[in-house]
Amino acid sequence: MTEVADRRFMSLALSLGRRGLGRTWPNPSVGCVIVRDGRILARARTADGGRPHAEVTALAACDAREATAYVTLEPCAHVGETPSCAEELARAGIARVVIATTDPDPRTAGQGIARLKAAGVAVETGLGGDEAREDLAGFLTRVTAGRPTVTLKLAASVDGRIATATGESQWITGPLARRDVHAMRARHDAVLVGAGTARADDPTLTIRDLGQDRQPVRIVFSRRLDLPLPSRLSQSVEAAPLWICHGTEAPAAAVARWAEAGARLFRCPTEGRQIAPAAALQALGAAGLTRIFCEGGGSLGASLLGADLVEDLICFTAGTALGAEGLPMIGALGLDALADAPRFRLAGVRPIGPDIRHHWRRR
Amino acid sequence: MTEVADRRFMSLALSLGRRGLGRTWPNPSVGCVIVRDGRILARARTADGGRPHAEVTALAACDAREATAYVTLEPCAHVGETPSCAEELARAGIARVVIATTDPDPRTAGQGIARLKAAGVAVETGLGGDEAREDLAGFLTRVTAGRPTVTLKLAASVDGRIATATGESQWITGPLARRDVHAMRARHDAVLVGAGTARADDPTLTIRDLGQDRQPVRIVFSRRLDLPLPSRLSQSVEAAPLWICHGTEAPAAAVARWAEAGARLFRCPTEGRQIAPAAALQALGAAGLTRIFCEGGGSLGASLLGADLVEDLICFTAGTALGAEGLPMIGALGLDALADAPRFRLAGVRPIGPDIRHHWRRR
Ligand SMILES: NC(=O)c1ccc[n+]([C@@H]2O[C@H](COP(=O)([O-])OP(=O)(O)OC[C@H]3O[C@@H](n4cnc5c(N)ncnc54)[C@H](OP(=O)(O)O)[C@@H]3O)[C@@H](O)[C@H]2O)c1
Ligand SMILES: NC(=O)c1ccc[n+]([C@@H]2O[C@H](COP(=O)([O-])OP(=O)(O)OC[C@H]3O[C@@H](n4cnc5c(N)ncnc54)[C@H](OP(=O)(O)O)[C@@H]3O)[C@@H](O)[C@H]2O)c1
Repeated sequence: MTEVADRRFMSLALSLGRRGLGRTWPNPSVGCVIVRDGRILARARTADGGRPHAEVTALAACDAREATAYVTLEPCAHVGETPSCAEELARAGIARVVIATTDPDPRTAGQGIARLKAAGVAVETGLGGDEAREDLAGFLTRVTAGRPTVTLKLAASVDGRIATATGESQWITGPLARRDVHAMRARHDAVLVGAGTARADDPTLTIRDLGQDRQPVRIVFSRRLDLPLPSRLSQSVEAAPLWICHGTEAPAAAVARWAEAGARLFRCPTEGRQIAPAAALQALGAAGLTRIFCEGGGSLGASLLGADLVEDLICFTAGTALGAEGLPMIGALGLDALADAPRFRLAGVRPIGPDIRHHWRRR
Repeated sequence: MTEVADRRFMSLALSLGRRGLGRTWPNPSVGCVIVRDGRILARARTADGGRPHAEVTALAACDAREATAYVTLEPCAHVGETPSCAEELARAGIARVVIATTDPDPRTAGQGIARLKAAGVAVETGLGGDEAREDLAGFLTRVTAGRPTVTLKLAASVDGRIATATGESQWITGPLARRDVHAMRARHDAVLVGAGTARADDPTLTIRDLGQDRQPVRIVFSRRLDLPLPSRLSQSVEAAPLWICHGTEAPAAAVARWAEAGARLFRCPTEGRQIAPAAALQALGAAGLTRIFCEGGGSLGASLLGADLVEDLICFTAGTALGAEGLPMIGALGLDALADAPRFRLAGVRPIGPDIRHHWRRR
């Protein structure tokens, strides 16, 4: 097998894996391609909900004897209700496994590879590794740090304002940008906003107009749980789960009311007058989330940025200026010096309708 | 001659014209290409300083009998020290002139075309017209409205801040963005900053490291003329002209001191505590300027945007956030509603080193 072919099949496995983002939590969305003599025998990704794993689905679809399997993550080694993927691959007669990146999950961490080798399967690791680690960052961060990754999305004027002084904020960016936001929601496990946005905009936070069959969890951070009830959020709990992170000081009556309305509640420690963002993310990671899409507002965005909890920053910029009285897209950060400012590297920029979208990744 | 060839030669004339931007004021930078039987006989742009005109230079370089001339602006009709370009083209035996856009200068306005036709020359107008009007916007605006066009350049963090609360603003964007700014300075007749920037940064505002043989005029708006003297600006008057727009209330002693230091002074009406921006631009237009490159700061940028005097907005965005305490890239605009915000359409966006550059044009 040539190197060029290896890269092509791994690239296909990676793109399969990406299609499952937002649909497989708490499991990673893995891609698998099975190839013999340059011909693709089967391809699969982790199923919605996280099971079956990609390898199992792909193996079930072909006779894999003497074939090569391309997988974006080390096959699991832990036997649960079903045998491990490493065992399944060996049992199916796979001759060679090409793995993009290893799995830090202590139940696998190298043991998937060890089992394959022990069964006489040739194993290669690292092809497409950078890309796989980017795609699987949510899963990897949850395994290694206990928390999901956060994508912070903000839409603003060229001067970084998300609303006029009088609070007018609708339609700063155009319909294509909004459509793009809905597509990004679909690639995350959950959508998050601050209580300020929940109060000001009464949002639904569901995915619309994309024929979406699966809705991400909707999360609100509200220290004292003073959120309007009923609201669009409470009225749509059947359509999509609603989780609320509240502070220890939230009144018991409010907690009870929201539980009754169908929300899942997370009691979180507070820091000053805010929910401690790192602790809240730990709680959400423990509940299984790997990828969170935060849509602001400026206060929550600042709190996450200030705590260095933002992996991806997605900015939409519209061709207008609102001036210094406008509401800032990012709240106070309390920086002492320019050198302390959070730094991101450019991942991409492009026009999107009349606006631009720029994507930055944490350095 | 095919349409495809016509477009190719006009496109060449346009790119020649663009090379003279910033070098020909008060005259437009025009491009001219002379072609016979599909072969280019001569090409030229308006010379530095505005004379000789492109047509004259191109005609001097070839035998133009029965040839076609492609010019980006209607050939002039006014006879001064030298014959008009329309006459020169006819006299040289040119058979056909293709013109991108007409000249609104009342001394020409259609008469260039009329003279050519009267001399039996075939004339076509409009090919490349949109592009020519964009390139020549500075000249056209000066002729029709009496003022130069303004390009407003701002470099900021993703949240639109140009300095931290403590005033640290150097090096927000990288060296490639700074180099790009110097290249843009060279394509304008003058560089403009507000007094706040002059006081805070003690800038030189010259073009460096680009082998530049010609420096744009440097302009400062300062109502009361309280600018540090000596300063880098005053110490570099030999290298590049220094013009100062000051208010009627500037002390006579300060005016005299700056005149002695080599500056050219423009006494301008004030509006509130600021120089009236439209009036100042009229004075600068009367002095011959067609293209001004404003580099801020935020107060002057807001004043120009608020008066609808900004044609091009060039933003550099760096991958960092400074938070709501940071200095805004655009000052207060006093908007009552989102609908009143100045609107721009996207002209281009691209990465530039670690930063992005986005270019917006007035709608
Ligand atoms: N253009 C856009 O992209 C966009 C996006 C979103 C919002 N917006 C606009 O932004 C405005 C709301 O922004 P905002 O900054 O006022 O509110 P926000 O960031 O949505 O919410 C802030 C509130 O969340 C609660 N909170 C709990 N833990 C927090 C933490 N760790 N950090 C920060 N907040 C925490 C606090 O309220 P409690 O006291 O309840 O805990 C706090 O006041 C609205 O006008 C909305 O329309 C615009
Ligand atoms: N990152 C960047 O791209 C960048 C670029 C430039 C500046 N900066 C930073 O921005 C800061 C300075 O900005 P700034 O907003 O304070 O000052 P500014 O806009 O440079 O200058 C404002 C001053 O100009 C004078 N002025 C006269 N006519 C005016 C008019 N029509 N509109 C506005 N101002 C007029 C006034 O001073 P008088 O009372 O003297 O008339 C006014 O206080 C500095 O910290 C500088 O480092 C950053």
